Amino acid sequence: MRLSRYFMPTLREAPADAQIVSHQLMLRAGLIRQEAAGIYAWLPLGLKVLKKIEEIVRQEMNRAGAVEILMPTLQLADLWRESGRYEDYGEEMLRIKDRHERDLLYGPTAEEVVTDIFRSYVKSYKDLPKNLYNIQWKFRDERRPRFGVMRGREFLMKDAYSFDIDEAAARRAYNRMFLAYLNVYSRLGLKAIPVRADTGPIGGDLSHEFIILAETGESQVFAHRDLVEMGAPGPDIDWDGDLQPLVEQRTRLYAASDEMHDEATYAALPEDKQMTARGIEVGHIFYFGTKYSAPMKANVTGPDGKDTPVQMGSYGVGVSRLVGAIIEASHDDGGIIWPDSVAPFGAAVLNLRAGDAGCDAVCEQAYKALSDAGIDPLYDDRDDRPGAKFAATDLVGIPWQLIVGPKGVADGVVELKRRSTGERQTLPLEAALKAIIG
Amino acid sequence: MRLSRYFMPTLREAPADAQIVSHQLMLRAGLIRQEAAGIYAWLPLGLKVLKKIEEIVRQEMNRAGAVEILMPTLQLADLWRESGRYEDYGEEMLRIKDRHERDLLYGPTAEEVVTDIFRSYVKSYKDLPKNLYNIQWKFRDERRPRFGVMRGREFLMKDAYSFDIDEAAARRAYNRMFLAYLNVYSRLGLKAIPVRADTGPIGGDLSHEFIILAETGESQVFAHRDLVEMGAPGPDIDWDGDLQPLVEQRTRLYAASDEMHDEATYAALPEDKQMTARGIEVGHIFYFGTKYSAPMKANVTGPDGKDTPVQMGSYGVGVSRLVGAIIEASHDDGGIIWPDSVAPFGAAVLNLRAGDAGCDAVCEQAYKALSDAGIDPLYDDRDDRPGAKFAATDLVGIPWQLIVGPKGVADGVVELKRRSTGERQTLPLEAALKAIIG
Repeated sequence: MRLSRYFMPTLREAPADAQIVSHQLMLRAGLIRQEAAGIYAWLPLGLKVLKKIEEIVRQEMNRAGAVEILMPTLQLADLWRESGRYEDYGEEMLRIKDRHERDLLYGPTAEEVVTDIFRSYVKSYKDLPKNLYNIQWKFRDERRPRFGVMRGREFLMKDAYSFDIDEAAARRAYNRMFLAYLNVYSRLGLKAIPVRADTGPIGGDLSHEFIILAETGESQVFAHRDLVEMGAPGPDIDWDGDLQPLVEQRTRLYAASDEMHDEATYAALPEDKQMTARGIEVGHIFYFGTKYSAPMKANVTGPDGKDTPVQMGSYGVGVSRLVGAIIEASHDDGGIIWPDSVAPFGAAVLNLRAGDAGCDAVCEQAYKALSDAGIDPLYDDRDDRPGAKFAATDLVGIPWQLIVGPKGVADGVVELKRRSTGERQTLPLEAALKAIIG
Repeated sequence: MRLSRYFMPTLREAPADAQIVSHQLMLRAGLIRQEAAGIYAWLPLGLKVLKKIEEIVRQEMNRAGAVEILMPTLQLADLWRESGRYEDYGEEMLRIKDRHERDLLYGPTAEEVVTDIFRSYVKSYKDLPKNLYNIQWKFRDERRPRFGVMRGREFLMKDAYSFDIDEAAARRAYNRMFLAYLNVYSRLGLKAIPVRADTGPIGGDLSHEFIILAETGESQVFAHRDLVEMGAPGPDIDWDGDLQPLVEQRTRLYAASDEMHDEATYAALPEDKQMTARGIEVGHIFYFGTKYSAPMKANVTGPDGKDTPVQMGSYGVGVSRLVGAIIEASHDDGGIIWPDSVAPFGAAVLNLRAGDAGCDAVCEQAYKALSDAGIDPLYDDRDDRPGAKFAATDLVGIPWQLIVGPKGVADGVVELKRRSTGERQTLPLEAALKAIIG
């Protein structure tokens, strides 16, 4: 993409009401624009990151056997009356009346809708297990939306729902999601810790939150160091096999956020294994049994010919929230430092003297080579000061900067900068391209 | 995908209230499920088609120089008060109050939001032209939603908005979209006719609708046969060059839908050039000048240093509607016939005796070969009657069927059926795979 044709409105300063660094940087780097309290438009650069995160989540859900559907944003109030949650949900639910005075609502979550879909079609244990997920905009009418996309009102969520014939099978479904989540965060360049969680208003008796480490995080997390340092299970585990050992390898190590923290247990850990840090919640999984299937009569016939309410769990990832969370975990004074996997562009080509025949030729050559290699480069071809170009490229956090100036061109070299380390090298164009393309 | 692990709930009969064939087939093939009047959930098969159409639209927008953003579904009523449309829009606009009694609405279109984004960042003619588009869910509270996704309330639309310094530049932006739209429809396997359109409530003085031919279409279209038979311009035209000749080559030939039809002009065409058929509107483009930029003060500084309201156009494609439109244009008594470009799976492998070692082995081999070749096969591995498998596979419209039965396996052959023609061949597996993979 040539920057002269793109739309990347960077700002010198963030609006004063942006309190946390991810919100400030998302506004300054031109990722989002506030349209109303807690409601944002995604500008081109932000949308590219959002889509990359979404695609990683999708791939890992598919790998773990979940099947994608798409539920509408608006739901019938009557379904929520069936589950008993319509009156309970409170003011966070955005209630709507259509032109015929029918009660609708903007879905804050979708247990009722997906249970209704399930009961319409699935009648036998033979069609189980099933895990249906969707990546769709949700709305929660927060009283005080703030922190940008970290606590917005309209937000993008991946929500998955598992359906099983009995508790043992439901536990297997839970384990698949538990491990798939660790793989998602790992691919996003994040260190994620699963902590036992309160089940809250969704209910149920088995639940974990996933907290990623970030100095600016909202909550304090306490964990066994071995858990923090343990890698994700990786994609090649046997998803149909017994995953309990892989899950237990993690859950037997202490981990808690402040709400659930037990100081005595933590203090009993060997001192060099105690680790505490700030973190951000980026996922939540629940097993809740028949909480929805019983009142909504989502029954399946078992092998014994008897009907029983299906066993369910739900599994949420805040996709739009993750854009902010990644920035909280990865930035410096100059701006954002995107992990390669979600960077909006793979490399930036900076033309320090646009219009100079030599610089233009080298930049075009680099731009073409990177494009052909699938790196998706952003070419800063604007007529602007080098200092402004450096600052903007640092701010938006593209992993590689290939800097082309008239002096280097005369000497047959370019400068290559790695955003994450700040490391710079002066080298021939071919060598720089090789370093980027790999 | 193995069908035993998928979620493809086909129905023997469509609900009685589904009046048109695409609605009937979308329900029967398990593409969608109605959640409320005019509000649908997209089941796995339908979502795959929807995403493929969306991606084709995206690619052609990008090729024509438009830049993708994402605007929220909910908008501030105040913006619509600025443009003067809030009171005018009528009952089709879903008006919402949040917990603080602020007026929101579910966007039926986004001229106001995008004009507001534009005016916040773009101040100079030097940053023009710009074309910003998004693919987002919209809501229009139709009094009588019907015909499934063809006239739903919550629907997916691609809406693009162009910004230019003067009329001549705006005309160039219009031409790019005019030709890009023809490329979109062509890739979807549709024959699309651009007809001059009434500009309706959006206003402006240059507008075309795109009508695709389908016997079951809602409106009558009258056109010069040469226009109907003219191919799309193709991707390799010079998008920065003068596109006026390519547009005029088409617009000088007569074409109108019933509303704008002029019988005298049509009758004056040579008789063998007169063509009339049923059609479905699947896109609408407008040039409307300063209709929004003037009241909303979206001004840019021109080369002369003077501020003028930016010249705008808007360009809509009904993405979810296209799923229905393609089915209207391409089906038979057995079900849907997907064009290859949007088919949910590239091929189906039918195991006529699941559990038979020979059939299983051949099917697994075919499934692996097709998967490795990127064909994305659906493998019907269920224990079910051959007749039921044939009917379901025809119904869901997958382009190729590779049929594996015990007799063929004994003879070293499989059967290959092309859905669109019904043609069947008996041939060795390798030859069948080669025919599919190409």
